[in-house]
Amino acid sequence: MFYHDNQLQYEVTVEEPDPTFARALQQAIGGVEGEMRVAMQYLFQAWAVPSDQQAYKELLLDTAAEELGHIEMLATAVKKNLEGAPVSLADVSNDGNDGLATLAGMQPRQHLSSGLNPLPTDSNGFPFNGNYIVASGNLAADMTANIMAESTGRLLATRLYELTDDPGMKDMLAYLVARDTMHQNQWLELLTELGDSEEPFDVLPIPDSFPDENENQEFNYAFLSTNVEAQDDPGMPWTQGDSPDSEGEFSYLSQVDLEGAAADVGAADPRVYNDPTPQNED
Amino acid sequence: MFYHDNQLQYEVTVEEPDPTFARALQQAIGGVEGEMRVAMQYLFQAWAVPSDQQAYKELLLDTAAEELGHIEMLATAVKKNLEGAPVSLADVSNDGNDGLATLAGMQPRQHLSSGLNPLPTDSNGFPFNGNYIVASGNLAADMTANIMAESTGRLLATRLYELTDDPGMKDMLAYLVARDTMHQNQWLELLTELGDSEEPFDVLPIPDSFPDENENQEFNYAFLSTNVEAQDDPGMPWTQGDSPDSEGEFSYLSQVDLEGAAADVGAADPRVYNDPTPQNED
Amino acid sequence: MFYHDNQLQYEVTVEEPDPTFARALQQAIGGVEGEMRVAMQYLFQAWAVPSDQQAYKELLLDTAAEELGHIEMLATAVKKNLEGAPVSLADVSNDGNDGLATLAGMQPRQHLSSGLNPLPTDSNGFPFNGNYIVASGNLAADMTANIMAESTGRLLATRLYELTDDPGMKDMLAYLVARDTMHQNQWLELLTELGDSEEPFDVLPIPDSFPDENENQEFNYAFLSTNVEAQDDPGMPWTQGDSPDSEGEFSYLSQVDLEGAAADVGAADPRVYNDPTPQNED
Amino acid sequence: MFYHDNQLQYEVTVEEPDPTFARALQQAIGGVEGEMRVAMQYLFQAWAVPSDQQAYKELLLDTAAEELGHIEMLATAVKKNLEGAPVSLADVSNDGNDGLATLAGMQPRQHLSSGLNPLPTDSNGFPFNGNYIVASGNLAADMTANIMAESTGRLLATRLYELTDDPGMKDMLAYLVARDTMHQNQWLELLTELGDSEEPFDVLPIPDSFPDENENQEFNYAFLSTNVEAQDDPGMPWTQGDSPDSEGEFSYLSQVDLEGAAADVGAADPRVYNDPTPQNED
Amino acid sequence: MFYHDNQLQYEVTVEEPDPTFARALQQAIGGVEGEMRVAMQYLFQAWAVPSDQQAYKELLLDTAAEELGHIEMLATAVKKNLEGAPVSLADVSNDGNDGLATLAGMQPRQHLSSGLNPLPTDSNGFPFNGNYIVASGNLAADMTANIMAESTGRLLATRLYELTDDPGMKDMLAYLVARDTMHQNQWLELLTELGDSEEPFDVLPIPDSFPDENENQEFNYAFLSTNVEAQDDPGMPWTQGDSPDSEGEFSYLSQVDLEGAAADVGAADPRVYNDPTPQNED
Amino acid sequence: MFYHDNQLQYEVTVEEPDPTFARALQQAIGGVEGEMRVAMQYLFQAWAVPSDQQAYKELLLDTAAEELGHIEMLATAVKKNLEGAPVSLADVSNDGNDGLATLAGMQPRQHLSSGLNPLPTDSNGFPFNGNYIVASGNLAADMTANIMAESTGRLLATRLYELTDDPGMKDMLAYLVARDTMHQNQWLELLTELGDSEEPFDVLPIPDSFPDENENQEFNYAFLSTNVEAQDDPGMPWTQGDSPDSEGEFSYLSQVDLEGAAADVGAADPRVYNDPTPQNED
Repeated sequence: MFYHDNQLQYEVTVEEPDPTFARALQQAIGGVEGEMRVAMQYLFQAWAVPSDQQAYKELLLDTAAEELGHIEMLATAVKKNLEGAPVSLADVSNDGNDGLATLAGMQPRQHLSSGLNPLPTDSNGFPFNGNYIVASGNLAADMTANIMAESTGRLLATRLYELTDDPGMKDMLAYLVARDTMHQNQWLELLTELGDSEEPFDVLPIPDSFPDENENQEFNYAFLSTNVEAQDDPGMPWTQGDSPDSEGEFSYLSQVDLEGAAADVGAADPRVYNDPTPQNED
Repeated sequence: MFYHDNQLQYEVTVEEPDPTFARALQQAIGGVEGEMRVAMQYLFQAWAVPSDQQAYKELLLDTAAEELGHIEMLATAVKKNLEGAPVSLADVSNDGNDGLATLAGMQPRQHLSSGLNPLPTDSNGFPFNGNYIVASGNLAADMTANIMAESTGRLLATRLYELTDDPGMKDMLAYLVARDTMHQNQWLELLTELGDSEEPFDVLPIPDSFPDENENQEFNYAFLSTNVEAQDDPGMPWTQGDSPDSEGEFSYLSQVDLEGAAADVGAADPRVYNDPTPQNED
Repeated sequence: MFYHDNQLQYEVTVEEPDPTFARALQQAIGGVEGEMRVAMQYLFQAWAVPSDQQAYKELLLDTAAEELGHIEMLATAVKKNLEGAPVSLADVSNDGNDGLATLAGMQPRQHLSSGLNPLPTDSNGFPFNGNYIVASGNLAADMTANIMAESTGRLLATRLYELTDDPGMKDMLAYLVARDTMHQNQWLELLTELGDSEEPFDVLPIPDSFPDENENQEFNYAFLSTNVEAQDDPGMPWTQGDSPDSEGEFSYLSQVDLEGAAADVGAADPRVYNDPTPQNED
Repeated sequence: MFYHDNQLQYEVTVEEPDPTFARALQQAIGGVEGEMRVAMQYLFQAWAVPSDQQAYKELLLDTAAEELGHIEMLATAVKKNLEGAPVSLADVSNDGNDGLATLAGMQPRQHLSSGLNPLPTDSNGFPFNGNYIVASGNLAADMTANIMAESTGRLLATRLYELTDDPGMKDMLAYLVARDTMHQNQWLELLTELGDSEEPFDVLPIPDSFPDENENQEFNYAFLSTNVEAQDDPGMPWTQGDSPDSEGEFSYLSQVDLEGAAADVGAADPRVYNDPTPQNED
Repeated sequence: MFYHDNQLQYEVTVEEPDPTFARALQQAIGGVEGEMRVAMQYLFQAWAVPSDQQAYKELLLDTAAEELGHIEMLATAVKKNLEGAPVSLADVSNDGNDGLATLAGMQPRQHLSSGLNPLPTDSNGFPFNGNYIVASGNLAADMTANIMAESTGRLLATRLYELTDDPGMKDMLAYLVARDTMHQNQWLELLTELGDSEEPFDVLPIPDSFPDENENQEFNYAFLSTNVEAQDDPGMPWTQGDSPDSEGEFSYLSQVDLEGAAADVGAADPRVYNDPTPQNED
Repeated sequence: MFYHDNQLQYEVTVEEPDPTFARALQQAIGGVEGEMRVAMQYLFQAWAVPSDQQAYKELLLDTAAEELGHIEMLATAVKKNLEGAPVSLADVSNDGNDGLATLAGMQPRQHLSSGLNPLPTDSNGFPFNGNYIVASGNLAADMTANIMAESTGRLLATRLYELTDDPGMKDMLAYLVARDTMHQNQWLELLTELGDSEEPFDVLPIPDSFPDENENQEFNYAFLSTNVEAQDDPGMPWTQGDSPDSEGEFSYLSQVDLEGAAADVGAADPRVYNDPTPQNED
């Protein structure tokens, strides 16, 4: 079963809200390359593992719960980027050409359907689809799907990193890029273990051309246990030793030992009628 | 952020595996009335709550994490009902007419795509869709969506209860029916609080004609906190006092204090090639 | 704007309910060849017609409203074919091999999601999709879409006619086949008028090999006005003169003058919990 | 069966066409919160009602036919807002920065697929989906779905009301907001009747914070019969007496007695090739 | 089976890349009116033709393979129109108002998901859907679907022709318009042959109002064989004689005899991380 | 551009038609693990390759065209397995229990929508979806998607191999399994080349437990050029040398040099009204 606390896994700040970037961020939430896919994919893969292979199941559940926390971070980032977004054509026309272009670049359902909040869709408003999830019953085939998911996911994160010029967003994305590096490596490690081979695999992390110094160097080879109790390092190939991309060394962290970060968000423009408080006094 | 342990929230046993019932159970996982919908819906609603309304956010996160555990229970139930399902036409023809009808009644992707494991789809193999999720930014509108989701969800659970004659499945469904009773009541409680009205609402729980004695009476008015640390009863209208359906009294439980249940499942027929262990000796 | 009364456009009777045929009938409701498509398609095409071409708009609205009545007839047919369908595995096993095959052949959501009622989906439970609707703004292009829709729709109806052996169902389908003949001809008539050509078009109706005597001969060349007031024949090329398939002569009918048919349907098995009446006495 | 006439249910005027607002209006046609959903939902719910509960069936058919007329009003509004929209990049560049932003903010299929006409999609061009429709066979569960649909639908209408500054559009939306108030109340009235409870429910209408004076006060508690013949008030709980939100008193209207409004729309720019008239003289 | 070479079927040049037009072009690739639909539709129709009707099968395969080449041309056109498109908000703000409007008008997944390359989606990013494909098993019904597909496809191409002001794009679209003229005529020819009627059909090509001189006059009545070996004219009704729109005369061409055109495209901005070459030196 | 001939790439025979197996085979055509996905995926990846990397583009086009031929083989297999399938309930009831179970196990649209022919859908009738296609612009990320696609595709083929007991189907599937082995290896070879590593990768082919002797040993390490002219071995890492799974040696074949196989299929039951020949004599 599953638990939560009231902290974000990593800090999410936005210096200058940008509704166009809020549209782009949706791709990382509900897009085919996004975090809803990997969270649900690792859950379904875990539930298919027979009980006598508990280490594999634990590995998958650990990372599934971590990914749920990534959706939460991105949802917070979308909400913060939508602060102050235009909700009336009068606002827009007072704002000159920029106003009209800003409205044009918004994902309209981020206003109309959710009141300036994140959606379970991609950047075009196309809803998350269960067929993105691969859980084949065959652990090796599943690992190829996971490497693919973390490769296209990391590629997306690097493109978002380049797109934004907000320091808070760049910092959050550097963290997510690092986690995708780790996840590519841990799934490849398991795939090679299933295949009894042990060798460097220099094509990883994909894309490899993203500068190392732009990646968060603290978290890019750390396995994160999300078990509700702090765990000792189980000494698995994905928690210690060289990483298969030969660029790092695995370590082991428990999420319960992380400091976490506050998740404070403001109320939306009253004209989107989110009615957050008791309201029938009129 | 989110955590997991290695227990099911409630026991899942199957006396006589039945692949036709495994098809039906999919509706409760990835169907429009299913648990993936409510889990993700409550998460997105929680992430839209402003920080100064923490009690509402906590309420939504508590139940979201609970629902993730329900998907897990149903996934386990599907897997157990697929044990021994036919994977070859030769098996089937040896089995006489029953064999052919059993194969006909299977959801083919539960074999072909997942190797006798659950899928993120409904009973027809239609994939879960992000547009099932309602998170409007307006808490009262969201509560109408939640009451609807728990009403159609409870209706589905009662139909599944009638469909099966397996005592383990009936016991699991009696638990899920009870939780849907609680959730209908807690969301209605919040809706009435937002509207400052306080009255019995006798149409709940929906469907009301399902016999009370078939519902698990221990859990049907208990609020379940899934916070990673045991919490004191916060004294909210949905944790104590009469329930709005006037049939129960709210209580408060912490998931960390639940005993939980083991999730043991066997390996699939080798002819579905799930390859769970190192395999390249051939 | 739109109106209704409490009659079916044509009688719908079922002698021997058959849940397998209920599954097949769904294709004609929410399938790509079905009646939801044409009803909505003709509405959107009508709304795109400029006001100075009122005759075209009226023609499209007339047939759109007729098609809404066809969905209603098919919905009634599905409901009647699901009477007595199995809702518990105990029922099924008491019924021997036939019971299991009957359950296997059901569309599971016709029980689980709708309580033995029609769904807005096709025969596989795939939901109706707005992109089936073609309304291009160009009336000639729209007519090619309409001829296609009525050709594949009539083909589906002839296949359903062959599939069933229930006399009531055969009679209803003979009526629907006849209406599709008319609609193919009326849209082709308009297409040729737009192109100023006037000639027989012997390939219609599609499929042409369906025996004429199995088609309802009273309604297959009658234009049906659904205007809320009885109209005089406007003397359009699709209300009088030879039909373009050279097999009939157009006539003109007002739906308000039709006798109609009763739509009586019974209550479902109580074990599907449809709770149709006040219910909280338990 | 169903009928139509050639009037709109309520006047639709646009002073200053705005293609960005035409994009937003699509959400109210084919979106998950839109009118296609409720029209089809009430039809399928009506067809599931047993014949001995004719009053419930009539109620559902009445409002279904009304909602078909709302789609028609919104389709007219979209068409009028697209008058003069850019269809060539040369137009756009002559228009300076505003032209480019206007083109950027358009829903491209409103030009490319429909020739400046409405589409059966939401604001992102995502097509209407049959799984939006809830018709469970259980009337109480259906009422929770209807209250939800009218709550999210009214929320959308209030957001559109704020977004536009066109007086004609504001007037049309004030009418639609009023109808959603009525519909929330009538469905709740039926739900409470099914549950034998009778009390004010102050959280309605949702959203409650929308100023009463911006809502059309003539139509917000009037039940509208769409029966093809004028009906006497049947004296149902949703046609007379206090409304459950305790803010109004129910009344009863027949659509045949409404005056209606003309639906005049012009021809599109010839460069979108809608070819509305005979055309083969070239 | 199928073959390829390294030439485009017709030249594709872009003088001034325009990312807004790249968004619009997607409609012709993966949209309901696009080339993926017709390519796959003609393949599935061909595979349903019995072996004793080889001429029909060959006809369908010939045009299917031609349409695959049209997807390729449009994909090249999209890629060329995305050259230099903005990939960072810093680029955009340096570019003044135009930059922001350009970014607003992009299809975000053409950057985020594909690295400035074409997608298998429509102009809104809605993915291609298999239910667009009509292959009914009945050749006459299939021909109505093909005439519809080529009518709405040609309509789309004429709207794109008007939208762009780039001479290379206009030339490519004039070619595609011409091919759609031919395809409308050849499918109608086959439909009339199946019906044994022979007459002019003046409404074709749809839309008929597009000026003849803007259409490529060399290819608009030429049947194109894509057989891997040059074929003699088989003397079919769609390879010689008058076209049914009475505006042209059929001729016969073999694709192996076409000159073809080079498909040269450049590398994308390095900041989209397409990593086309060995990369692990960092 | 693209070409075709009239041969199948490999022989397709069916000894005993089985409509239940025809349903299962659909998964390999339009399913998420199927051949439509890989054919279109390799095309879009090819079109994203810059012109100065022609070898990569040629590689992708070669295999794309090969995959189109695999869809054709599977479509032929579906059609042959549907010969004699029941199309009337009278047939079925004459056939005893087996008849009913056979009808129950059919994919209804394989009769109703296509007249006993293949569909562009998966085994549940869910249509092919463009979002299955991954073409990211980054060749290494694309290779992870290709390895995943060929792994899950090969897993599906092995499950189909076990499911059937028809020798013709087993032979066809042994061929397809072999091609998936080759394709896994060639994409991995390219991935390692991009990463400058060269090592055995023993986990391949996935699933590795499928007995080597059940795989076609002639084609499992042969690269197949589909260029319209026979090509010399270009000496690429995927056309010669050891395969990365260390179980084979690459070779090079031209499809133009293959013998091919005839694609003869019969006409369907006349009661499905496929009307393959001129028909208007009635």
